Amino acid sequence: MAKQNIFDNETFFDGYMKLRERQVNANNIFELPTLFSLMPDLEGKKVLDLGCGSGERCIDYIRRGASKVVGLDISEKMLEVARRDNSDPKITYLNMPMEDIDKLSETFDIVISSLAFHYVEDYCGLVNSVYSLLTDGGIFLFSQEHPLATCYSGKHDRWTRDEEGKKLYVNISDYCIERRNDSTWFVEGVQRYHRMFSTIMNALADAGFRILRVEEPYPTDEIIKKYPEYYDNFHKPDFLFVKAEKFTKGV
Amino acid sequence: MAKQNIFDNETFFDGYMKLRERQVNANNIFELPTLFSLMPDLEGKKVLDLGCGSGERCIDYIRRGASKVVGLDISEKMLEVARRDNSDPKITYLNMPMEDIDKLSETFDIVISSLAFHYVEDYCGLVNSVYSLLTDGGIFLFSQEHPLATCYSGKHDRWTRDEEGKKLYVNISDYCIERRNDSTWFVEGVQRYHRMFSTIMNALADAGFRILRVEEPYPTDEIIKKYPEYYDNFHKPDFLFVKAEKFTKGV
Repeated sequence: MAKQNIFDNETFFDGYMKLRERQVNANNIFELPTLFSLMPDLEGKKVLDLGCGSGERCIDYIRRGASKVVGLDISEKMLEVARRDNSDPKITYLNMPMEDIDKLSETFDIVISSLAFHYVEDYCGLVNSVYSLLTDGGIFLFSQEHPLATCYSGKHDRWTRDEEGKKLYVNISDYCIERRNDSTWFVEGVQRYHRMFSTIMNALADAGFRILRVEEPYPTDEIIKKYPEYYDNFHKPDFLFVKAEKFTKGV
Repeated sequence: MAKQNIFDNETFFDGYMKLRERQVNANNIFELPTLFSLMPDLEGKKVLDLGCGSGERCIDYIRRGASKVVGLDISEKMLEVARRDNSDPKITYLNMPMEDIDKLSETFDIVISSLAFHYVEDYCGLVNSVYSLLTDGGIFLFSQEHPLATCYSGKHDRWTRDEEGKKLYVNISDYCIERRNDSTWFVEGVQRYHRMFSTIMNALADAGFRILRVEEPYPTDEIIKKYPEYYDNFHKPDFLFVKAEKFTKGV
């Protein structure tokens, strides 16, 4: 199947950039803090960012001491922003679909990906490619949409609400049926792949990774005080994080 | 908190035994086949079964070549059945809460538990005790109620149904709030502990296990043809399985 390059769609790109410019969004409240809480020591490390987007994270890796960063993205429009706003002599931006990383010749100490894997059809292929790009004991850290989020097919209301419209619970159907869900997000036909927890864990274990940490971020008391509308993240976490180590018997 | 010994409650015991006597139940259709599909080679191995109940599995481990089996259960009534119906010179039945296994002096090659851990309050303590009872490279295989099942608090209908009463989707609330849910199952006040998927994975990783396999069983076409009423297991799997290896750096 063709690799999705939705970020080069004008309408999607503009909508997405506006969303990310807002200071109060799920990425800033849940996703980025969790990602950086799981971040290994980057001092002197070679880092690959799969789906680097506009490159803010790549700059941060350099600030944290990374010796080299390769930021890879399928969207040329995103990389234009990255090269304009987040360039550094130690950063190389590559316009390439992450499905093609097996073509990269160099190896990395750390591979990071933020909210990109739910767009990928061949999950096991990607995980195996990451494994082969990592040095022994290398760290693989990624976030993706949570399986309770990706399983939403749009066939019925996502939420059951009370009279005031408050979300009471999330309506889950066909969690065990893995599939591509085409949804409308800024534009029609945005393709997300639903996979069960077990499929994600087994792809990592089968590739040869040792799972070090799994996170499903939910609101702190502080977040609920400031942004009560995020209570629904107790019912359905938006994001899943996995930190894994390249496991080599005998090392 | 007192360790729950619900299986010694007469009413619960009779209801549970009748349920298990039925040939068509979720245990026979999903749980046992998955457990045995994940079973390591037992030839000459020492096996510990946590929550062995009436001992059918212990007898099966002997048939599969286990050199010794210790079946442990908190319920004396269950062990009476085990000693009567499933005794073997190589099997020792111990009446002990699994929370106390740190008191066992011997080690095991394989620790197995079927549908017991959702009754345990101190999950990390139990996982750490299992780790210390295992020989290096030993296998820990267990099933428990799935987090999408344990998170049901009884505050609202578990399912949304159509006019004919067919289950359309499962209503999930407070998945991210870990807690004890007291429900009525044959008797009132059966205590189950809800834990997020990440809590289960992290307890294993932190103890020093390498996760080898995770399974969330769902119906095959054959099962759906024979028992269409089990379609709802696509929406909400009843069981979670984990197979993990005692990981020792350098081994």
